[in-house]
Amino acid sequence: MSEYATSVITHTSDPSTWTIAKGYSFAGIVGKLRSEPNRRDIGAIVSEVPCSAAGVFTLNRVAAAPVQISRLRVPGASIKGIVCCSGNANACTGAQGRTDAEMMAHALGSKVNVTGEEILVASTGIIGRPLPMGTVGPAIAKAAAALKDTPEALNDFAHSILTTDTVIKVATLEVNLHGTPVRFTGIAKGAAMIGPNMATMLGFVLTDASIAPSLLQEALGKAVDRTFNCISVEGHMSTNDTVFALANGMSGGPAITGHGIYYQQFEQDLTRVCSQLARAIAEDAEGATHIVELLVEGTTTEAEARQMAKTVAESALVKTALFGADPNWGRIVSAAGYSGVVFEEKDMSLHLGPYLLYDKGVPMPFDEAEVSKYMKDNRHLTAKLTLNHGNACCQFWTCDLTHEYVTLNAEYTT
Amino acid sequence: MSEYATSVITHTSDPSTWTIAKGYSFAGIVGKLRSEPNRRDIGAIVSEVPCSAAGVFTLNRVAAAPVQISRLRVPGASIKGIVCCSGNANACTGAQGRTDAEMMAHALGSKVNVTGEEILVASTGIIGRPLPMGTVGPAIAKAAAALKDTPEALNDFAHSILTTDTVIKVATLEVNLHGTPVRFTGIAKGAAMIGPNMATMLGFVLTDASIAPSLLQEALGKAVDRTFNCISVEGHMSTNDTVFALANGMSGGPAITGHGIYYQQFEQDLTRVCSQLARAIAEDAEGATHIVELLVEGTTTEAEARQMAKTVAESALVKTALFGADPNWGRIVSAAGYSGVVFEEKDMSLHLGPYLLYDKGVPMPFDEAEVSKYMKDNRHLTAKLTLNHGNACCQFWTCDLTHEYVTLNAEYTT
Repeated sequence: MSEYATSVITHTSDPSTWTIAKGYSFAGIVGKLRSEPNRRDIGAIVSEVPCSAAGVFTLNRVAAAPVQISRLRVPGASIKGIVCCSGNANACTGAQGRTDAEMMAHALGSKVNVTGEEILVASTGIIGRPLPMGTVGPAIAKAAAALKDTPEALNDFAHSILTTDTVIKVATLEVNLHGTPVRFTGIAKGAAMIGPNMATMLGFVLTDASIAPSLLQEALGKAVDRTFNCISVEGHMSTNDTVFALANGMSGGPAITGHGIYYQQFEQDLTRVCSQLARAIAEDAEGATHIVELLVEGTTTEAEARQMAKTVAESALVKTALFGADPNWGRIVSAAGYSGVVFEEKDMSLHLGPYLLYDKGVPMPFDEAEVSKYMKDNRHLTAKLTLNHGNACCQFWTCDLTHEYVTLNAEYTT
Repeated sequence: MSEYATSVITHTSDPSTWTIAKGYSFAGIVGKLRSEPNRRDIGAIVSEVPCSAAGVFTLNRVAAAPVQISRLRVPGASIKGIVCCSGNANACTGAQGRTDAEMMAHALGSKVNVTGEEILVASTGIIGRPLPMGTVGPAIAKAAAALKDTPEALNDFAHSILTTDTVIKVATLEVNLHGTPVRFTGIAKGAAMIGPNMATMLGFVLTDASIAPSLLQEALGKAVDRTFNCISVEGHMSTNDTVFALANGMSGGPAITGHGIYYQQFEQDLTRVCSQLARAIAEDAEGATHIVELLVEGTTTEAEARQMAKTVAESALVKTALFGADPNWGRIVSAAGYSGVVFEEKDMSLHLGPYLLYDKGVPMPFDEAEVSKYMKDNRHLTAKLTLNHGNACCQFWTCDLTHEYVTLNAEYTT
């Protein structure tokens, strides 16, 4: 499509390659919430002008205070920025936690001349401990003073939200929308599968496109379902998972107010950025020796494909077999069998990499040593489950279950 | 209740303590399905007279051939016996597998003068490999010739169904029903949480009570829900899970034909036997260092309590924290939070052993070293989640996730 002639997506840790969406400033500073003396732990993002805002949150009934607060503010038509802290999740902290989250929003808002209601809040870290507000308040003021619209400031922000991550995750995209350049800047944190403390996932996508809040919310929901909801974080849903999208319209491009071609392009672009960030999270699985792309195709609905992929991806038996380089097709097929998706054995086939192990319900003869060698030699594996029910599909990322996973998660203490 | 004055339940591995339900004979022989030269692998149970029969099976869409065959025969009014093989699951074996399972039933039936349709079939072992029928057929004939109504023969049968188990599981019960002694003899296999090859669970309960097939099926369904379905086998549902109950009426006790007091007692008795067997499976978790009894109480329905318990019991983060003797209440509470049961934080409290860690949504101060010592010092732990919604509850068993689990499951190859 000619509209996309100049589309460029970047996911690197080199700030000089990043595209910053117009009108956004960033900061990430050392707020002293953490014991490490030089670790950034307070982050802020502010837009020059009010934004359309959308948010997708954890479905956990035990939701952190910042989630409870931010839920009330999206979708919103007049959001000015986002404040975030790492090291303390502000979860299981009751009414005091909600007051503290409100105070965080107020602390940033007061520095950029808006009310706390115009600021979104996110947190990640240890749960069940009150925020040290005497430290957090001044730190947010310091972050507000440091706001800049530069790649270096974005780099600081990307660092300030990390917990057990080993690398920052930034993905940017510039597209040509009806002759106008439109930019997306995405930042995330999360270390798939391996993260102690429930591996909170946070994502932020900022764009200078112009889009109505309800449409931004719809597009973000679809993008998250196909990306962040397609990585397996050991099945343990965090209290703090949050993805925000802001759109400030400063590109000057056409306003997206209905479900036409511009909306379709926007949803695709937003999904591409989220996909890069989600894959970066799946890659950052320290304890893992294999990263697996799991495809389910040929289901009647996308939800069925996702349900089957998620069930297989979260099976401890499948994940230990991957670690052991064991081409154990039976564990994969039987995990699909209890996923809740209705099928007959003869409806299903399984490929592991280039090898067809199970064909329409029949186990195929294969050279076990050869397939095991393929698994040993490749950090990135693919597995594909094919049904013959329809045209829906899902792409899912998971990793193996290793000794290091057990060590990291057994030795970490609240 | 005076009816229960003589109730005695036994779960030991000493055959001299067992009660054999009247009219049943057992055999467990070396059929040479396995590479180990002296390992019993073919088992048979036969009743003198036709039985009411019930069965509960895996819900996995990929169900083994013996499951597909036996499903058609229960509930049934004229079942004569059960044949079982270990070492080969006869799963993912297509039409040939179904023919082979039928042949197993026929092989036993022909020796006791009934058709194959009057015999139930179960298998456990490696999946995806055809049964060596040239070996299995003669082995079943040998088992039929070995049938005896003695504790020694029951002991042989209990050994013949084992795979990765380290001990046999037998539980027997004798009760006084309206002045008549009625007996239950239960046998199971399964090694919770740790079993490679999907830890197939098999259970067999034989009684000389007299009960209509539909009522036996109802009672077995309820008993299984409260017992075998309340142990966590790493969440990976096997292709072969099967529980059978036979009732031959030879006690001469009153016939149970409706939902009166005799039925209620029967359901309780059957549940007690299944409960002993399920706990024996939970105990036989080789790679585990802790066995955890998880209570959920105060939900509106029993299904909700079970759903919450199962979600917590299967969380890899909860299980690694138990291994690390880490009193990480946040992982337990947040796993409950994503169980799908709707509640507010203030509705929930958590005890770990005698320690109240979380009280109506508020984290309680506690001595971490003391609670961790309690966890280190006790192989058996209890955790209790209390809600304030209703009077339903569930008792669930799980174990921790250890290095040995990863080793065993990574190194086992199909």
